[in-house]
Amino acid sequence: MQNKKIVINILGKLLFFECFFMLLSIAVCAIYGGRDIISFIYSFGITLVAASLLTMGTFTKKIDLRKREGYIIVSLVWVVFSIFGSLPYLFSGAIPSVSDAFFETMSGFTTTGSSILNNIEELSHGILFWRSITQWIGGMGIIVLFLAILPKLGIGGRELFIAEVPGPSPDKLTPSIAATARKLWGLYILFTLAETLLLWIGGMSFFDAINHSFTTMATGGYSTKQDSIAYYDSAYIQYIVILFMIIAGTNFSLSYAAFTGKPKKLLKDEEFKFYFIIIGCFTLLITIGLVMHDTGIEKSFRDALFQVTSIITTTGYATADYLLWSPFLGMLILMLMFIGGSAGSTGGGVKVVRVLLLLKNSYLELKRLIHPNAVINVKYNNHRVAQKNVTNIMAFLILYMIIFATSTIIMSLSMNDLDSALSSVATSLGNIGPGFGSIGPSNNFSELPAWSKWFLSFLMLLGRLELFTVLILFSKAFWKK
Amino acid sequence: MQNKKIVINILGKLLFFECFFMLLSIAVCAIYGGRDIISFIYSFGITLVAASLLTMGTFTKKIDLRKREGYIIVSLVWVVFSIFGSLPYLFSGAIPSVSDAFFETMSGFTTTGSSILNNIEELSHGILFWRSITQWIGGMGIIVLFLAILPKLGIGGRELFIAEVPGPSPDKLTPSIAATARKLWGLYILFTLAETLLLWIGGMSFFDAINHSFTTMATGGYSTKQDSIAYYDSAYIQYIVILFMIIAGTNFSLSYAAFTGKPKKLLKDEEFKFYFIIIGCFTLLITIGLVMHDTGIEKSFRDALFQVTSIITTTGYATADYLLWSPFLGMLILMLMFIGGSAGSTGGGVKVVRVLLLLKNSYLELKRLIHPNAVINVKYNNHRVAQKNVTNIMAFLILYMIIFATSTIIMSLSMNDLDSALSSVATSLGNIGPGFGSIGPSNNFSELPAWSKWFLSFLMLLGRLELFTVLILFSKAFWKK
Repeated sequence: MQNKKIVINILGKLLFFECFFMLLSIAVCAIYGGRDIISFIYSFGITLVAASLLTMGTFTKKIDLRKREGYIIVSLVWVVFSIFGSLPYLFSGAIPSVSDAFFETMSGFTTTGSSILNNIEELSHGILFWRSITQWIGGMGIIVLFLAILPKLGIGGRELFIAEVPGPSPDKLTPSIAATARKLWGLYILFTLAETLLLWIGGMSFFDAINHSFTTMATGGYSTKQDSIAYYDSAYIQYIVILFMIIAGTNFSLSYAAFTGKPKKLLKDEEFKFYFIIIGCFTLLITIGLVMHDTGIEKSFRDALFQVTSIITTTGYATADYLLWSPFLGMLILMLMFIGGSAGSTGGGVKVVRVLLLLKNSYLELKRLIHPNAVINVKYNNHRVAQKNVTNIMAFLILYMIIFATSTIIMSLSMNDLDSALSSVATSLGNIGPGFGSIGPSNNFSELPAWSKWFLSFLMLLGRLELFTVLILFSKAFWKK
Repeated sequence: MQNKKIVINILGKLLFFECFFMLLSIAVCAIYGGRDIISFIYSFGITLVAASLLTMGTFTKKIDLRKREGYIIVSLVWVVFSIFGSLPYLFSGAIPSVSDAFFETMSGFTTTGSSILNNIEELSHGILFWRSITQWIGGMGIIVLFLAILPKLGIGGRELFIAEVPGPSPDKLTPSIAATARKLWGLYILFTLAETLLLWIGGMSFFDAINHSFTTMATGGYSTKQDSIAYYDSAYIQYIVILFMIIAGTNFSLSYAAFTGKPKKLLKDEEFKFYFIIIGCFTLLITIGLVMHDTGIEKSFRDALFQVTSIITTTGYATADYLLWSPFLGMLILMLMFIGGSAGSTGGGVKVVRVLLLLKNSYLELKRLIHPNAVINVKYNNHRVAQKNVTNIMAFLILYMIIFATSTIIMSLSMNDLDSALSSVATSLGNIGPGFGSIGPSNNFSELPAWSKWFLSFLMLLGRLELFTVLILFSKAFWKK
């Protein structure tokens, strides 16, 4: 009873944050001509009433969160945010169907970036801004923002933080979760402002610049243009976006260290090095492939680097349609979908550090076969990794594959070809955005039946919270006393 | 020096076995009209001379095998057998190209069943028999046959056995490796004879019956007909083949127990139960799918059961072209390619027991998150499985996925679409046979460039020896003193 109250209370408090961002959208509407302002006022009102009812009805002095409640709150808050977050789309008529609106909002908050919209440039400034800001909130995390502003949760805060940022992040910046959350969000805002400025200088309108900065730093991928970044025929703009995608896919703790006078920490980090090596190798291969197909060298390099960065960071912006490339180049892109950004970044997917540790462990497994009695540990950043942690990462990947396989079978019920089915799951689970076949970078998800949109939304949530946090709610052991 | 000698000596001895099977083919040529008999006599002569030179030049009294030599011998023998085994194809002109002949032979010995031949019914009886018998030898294993007949290897025999039959087989029948090998081959021969008889009764010619029995029991899939089993428009024949495919995909130790008065052991075995559940569920889903597309109920059920059994046991026979089915049914077939037969069967792939243990462990990983300090073990057949073994299986699957991903990228260089590239690797690594797209059940591998045939041959070997035995040869630690 007490537990249920706490969960509802915190969910209510979190909803006030969503109200605040709706207020921002109202301001944007007011500045840019006012279309759709009334839809945002309705949405704001409803969300505010809901938030007030939830918090007032469950007022409690002592909030003592345990792990169990942490998992429930973190999983639920993304669903609740997506429900209320779809109201502006519905009220404005920008997206008339409930399934579509929920899909678009969940795709926003989880920074997936898959869209059901066919003509983005027709939308009002308010709606465009709302689309971008859902990604920006989801990128650094709803809970992390909450902890940065309302740190009065004591030990429960740590549980929440771990449930939302569950990756194998090496260090958590500072011993205090609240201070960590503030530093992460501070840096996030700083990067967003820097990119906005640089894009604005490059000739983008201020509105487009801030929107694209929101969705770059969140590795979300929503654009204010139907053609995504390909709309901007400017090498400068594309390189700026590449730079900030790379930053967004880097561990924010490391970037923080680099900013506060410890740049060596960044360069010595094995995950960061491996992240760079992957980007380098894939870009090189794709550049060669594109040059061989008679594209100019600079343009080939830029398209290759842009697509590689966009997919590995799970942003999902497009400057070129990789479906038109050769099967070899397409396969490289498909494989990148399974890697994802660095741990502690806003990128999704399996995460670079996991891939690295699994590669190391696979090689060591051969060594273990030769010396069956020796204890051979994986080393990472000059430390031994406990076998327990390696096992957990292996279990993560295997669970990822099991979910990937079953979901692909399910999605093939609504697809015309295997590529589309496979990539719809890869792109949703990895929070990337575009896929292959009928859901490629020049197409969208609008033609899918409603049930498959709900299903993909669920996969996005699973992927954003790295499987365990959500799946644990479906296990018997979780609900046992 | 001593070690090198032993390796060469044993390889030479093993080659005598290949000579013996070539003699059988000579007999078949003599019985059925004699075409190509001279090619087999040449091949036999060359192989006999090579075997004699290798054994005589390295005569040694004391054979003391260690693990290291075991891995080398087991990996090399499959390559050596495929080199000499391709001679009959080359001499007879049935396959004029060296790459093609090697591919066809490696595909035979590894029981993959992928073919580059376009008109199988044109081939002579001798060549058809040789194709089938390469699969039959490879099915139960070259080394296992060797140990059954020449058990004088002492402790080294166990090392060889483990390197060739590396799966997580629960019990090895009897404490003596030689006795185990004899029992396995004995049962294998018995099943082959039984199937031959039943197919002969069903109206198949004796020659076709014995050939199909060879390739069924080996889960190989080579047929004497261009249309594979679809050629036989007889429900009786198809159900007989299904029955023996299921037997071939079952752990032979369990079948042995069932035959010697312990049938309960079979029914209580978790792997066997899971194997049945998978076949049942996939057959049900595909039957429903086919009935919905207006095929008759019995025919739908038979086609579904046949394809499911053919793919999960990694046999690869065809009665229906699954490429013509809907994407959902096609995806079910693609997923089955990653499961494979039971451990200790002649089937390839990841193996049912590994899939089962990984599913159990993934569920327990959620439990471990809730109770982080408890030691929670996977249970299998009422025994606790040591975490070390579970970790090894996880490493196996992850290595399988890494090899699958890299190989798919490589194969996409020679393919026109992603489906073909993906499935060419899945089918080779899993020792199945047909794939999707341009290498579907009604097509073959002849159009591929030569390099990709060598590459796929390597993948077949990797898959047949379950990765580690071959890969270990490429690790630095293996060659260090």
